[in-house]
Amino acid sequence: MFDVSVFLFQDDYIPYPRIEEVLERGGAYPQVILPEFGGYWIEDPDAPPPADSRGKEEVEEEETAPGDYGYRLEEINEAARAYRKHFLGREHLNFSCSSSSVGNLLLSVRHEQEKEHEHLLVIIRSRVKSVYHRLSLAELPDIPSVPELAKLLCDEAAGLRFSPVLYPKASQLIVNYDEHEVNNTYKFGVIYQRFGQVSEEELFRNNEETPAFTEFLQLLGDTVDLQDFKGFRGGLDVSHGQTGSQSIYTVHRQQEIMFHVSTKLPFTEGDAQQLQRKRHIGNDIVALVFQEEATPFVPDMIASNFLHAFVVVQAEEPCSETTSYKVSVTAREDVPPFGPPLAAPVFKKGPEFREFLLTKLINAELACYKSDRFARLEERTRAALLDSLHDELQRRSQSMLGLTPGPEEEGRGENGQAHGGLLESIKVNCVSSVFETSYCQ
Amino acid sequence: MFDVSVFLFQDDYIPYPRIEEVLERGGAYPQVILPEFGGYWIEDPDAPPPADSRGKEEVEEEETAPGDYGYRLEEINEAARAYRKHFLGREHLNFSCSSSSVGNLLLSVRHEQEKEHEHLLVIIRSRVKSVYHRLSLAELPDIPSVPELAKLLCDEAAGLRFSPVLYPKASQLIVNYDEHEVNNTYKFGVIYQRFGQVSEEELFRNNEETPAFTEFLQLLGDTVDLQDFKGFRGGLDVSHGQTGSQSIYTVHRQQEIMFHVSTKLPFTEGDAQQLQRKRHIGNDIVALVFQEEATPFVPDMIASNFLHAFVVVQAEEPCSETTSYKVSVTAREDVPPFGPPLAAPVFKKGPEFREFLLTKLINAELACYKSDRFARLEERTRAALLDSLHDELQRRSQSMLGLTPGPEEEGRGENGQAHGGLLESIKVNCVSSVFETSYCQ
Repeated sequence: MFDVSVFLFQDDYIPYPRIEEVLERGGAYPQVILPEFGGYWIEDPDAPPPADSRGKEEVEEEETAPGDYGYRLEEINEAARAYRKHFLGREHLNFSCSSSSVGNLLLSVRHEQEKEHEHLLVIIRSRVKSVYHRLSLAELPDIPSVPELAKLLCDEAAGLRFSPVLYPKASQLIVNYDEHEVNNTYKFGVIYQRFGQVSEEELFRNNEETPAFTEFLQLLGDTVDLQDFKGFRGGLDVSHGQTGSQSIYTVHRQQEIMFHVSTKLPFTEGDAQQLQRKRHIGNDIVALVFQEEATPFVPDMIASNFLHAFVVVQAEEPCSETTSYKVSVTAREDVPPFGPPLAAPVFKKGPEFREFLLTKLINAELACYKSDRFARLEERTRAALLDSLHDELQRRSQSMLGLTPGPEEEGRGENGQAHGGLLESIKVNCVSSVFETSYCQ
Repeated sequence: MFDVSVFLFQDDYIPYPRIEEVLERGGAYPQVILPEFGGYWIEDPDAPPPADSRGKEEVEEEETAPGDYGYRLEEINEAARAYRKHFLGREHLNFSCSSSSVGNLLLSVRHEQEKEHEHLLVIIRSRVKSVYHRLSLAELPDIPSVPELAKLLCDEAAGLRFSPVLYPKASQLIVNYDEHEVNNTYKFGVIYQRFGQVSEEELFRNNEETPAFTEFLQLLGDTVDLQDFKGFRGGLDVSHGQTGSQSIYTVHRQQEIMFHVSTKLPFTEGDAQQLQRKRHIGNDIVALVFQEEATPFVPDMIASNFLHAFVVVQAEEPCSETTSYKVSVTAREDVPPFGPPLAAPVFKKGPEFREFLLTKLINAELACYKSDRFARLEERTRAALLDSLHDELQRRSQSMLGLTPGPEEEGRGENGQAHGGLLESIKVNCVSSVFETSYCQ
């Protein structure tokens, strides 16, 4: 697929066929094709499932709850949740360090005694990552010092000097920092593709909601009135009706999902781009593509720096007792594979398909966060948030010791405001106008 | 009663009648008389009950539990239990300070958020006292600094510099320190006084356990075999039978009580002092005196620096359906009054009398701790323990920061060993031989 040779020998490179060519050829159309120059992968239903397709965290749950078809949300960074799970509200110590070599570090350490067994629970946060470790004290003569613990978890952190965090409300700031990358809300695009449509202009021009599409939307979630909607609004206007009057919303495993349905977003007469629609769907990371007939979809059809993965669903025998859906999944090359695996690509309409689809969408977004683009953004965000957390904790600690006149900027927002998932964090910490126009390549 | 004039004008002082004189006079003997030169108080059954005879802590309990006659254990220093109750295992910070003016200080601070209400819970420990305070943050612009908190709770602690405690296991050392004055075990003497006995030699020579005395002992608690006894042994020998084969033991409101019964302790032929018996009863702080007939008891009859209070019980119609007991209470002048008040001094035999008696005994001991002698001992103990705690926490904190080679004296006992009530602490921290002979005035 996507290959370094594209750049080196572009003249010699034989591109994949264009979507127009595929359509012209006729016959049994593939549901998804690769762009001419690749850059995406398409999930192979015959591939063996990846070993880690089930999150460890989730496997602990009751395996056989009613209505549970065994589709698991994939685990995100354990360290991001470790502080809330093991430290918050309990006895522990926090230490910070500002080093010219590795930047700011923030370390949390808790002593745990379970009968005979002693452990130290340690989290170390640096600009590039957070690491959580549970260290048995059985073999150690004494509790390691903070510099020793830092070295243990993070090779680069050798020979540093740490100072204690002495602010009684520090833990709330720290948990907000740790959870800046924890997301419980998702927004996904839903694009209606008619037979033979090959461009985003064509897609966004579709206004008709056919019975088959309505049937599919009802399976996804509830149709909600946007006016005064109290759940997660996913950027939609709930006050002035600027983004349409209704949308599709659901909650799956405590995760709130708002869909951006192309046909429900406002249609603007005379706007070929349909910016009112693209503004939302083009800023989503994952989108569903709904096809009523067999027709090829190509993931570069919609120009967007955000969209990284597509779940393509084709209705078969819609609006009948035997409605079923054929599913394909495609994502950019730098998005790692995600579960649940597409073992048999045709699903009967029903709760199991719904659970598969919602799980696949959420896992797709979590996987997209690991792509180069979002990982880089996240790293920049982490670093900025960590620096600001470090400064605040230092200032508060000094003030607690009575060594400074005390904080004067009480009105200043705390890191807490930056809570609300990766994207929220990025948006808060970067110049927002960069992103408002980012879908226009 | 006891008066400074005794010393100033001893020649003019008219002493109370000696016990021999009281006996010679005959007639209706008072149950307890004052020593010739006073120094004790006798509880007046007609006095109004003191306002604080019920501990606040205890009043919160169910008032009408079955078998609960409303007799309450009196509250001891709230600060001694505050750390376990509000800090241990929860997020909090500890700070220590070594000042030339007030000695070592150890401060604990915890931020508490209950809905809208923010509080700081603070304990400050000095050589002379511990103070616990719950400070509302509602009126404050920000969290006060540690020096400000110290000043707030302890006027003398102004302008000090505190350093943080950074040892992950510090809380266990701190709770051990705080609870060095918390006692859940008690030992009380039980002395059998026959009619007309006026000296400790006579009392300790009694060997016969009459049916009336046996009936009373059975009301107090269970007769237990000392060999391999697993409960609180109150200094009795549970391995080699050196202190007799049986004793009386009971548990009252989670407090373990071992009685030192004069007739059950070994009798030594030819020892006028009966040191085997006096060694235990003379080192108790509170003793019961059991009388089978009306006869006067005088509290200086037994020479002891420890014994500070006596509960004197006289059986009436013993070993019958209508057995009852007449009770008098006497204590040294510097022992504050203690409850439950002796409203009607004659009790029918039964569970209510038992509860009254055990409560009165425990409260007597708690009150005796406030007498000059024990308060002074406690202060010396506090100071020694606090100094050693401070040093250990400082050393451990430095080591945690990696600033010292680390602790080398791993085998050294921690303060934890000093746990087990006021007396245990005193004994551990002072030269024990001083106390082994202290009952001989």
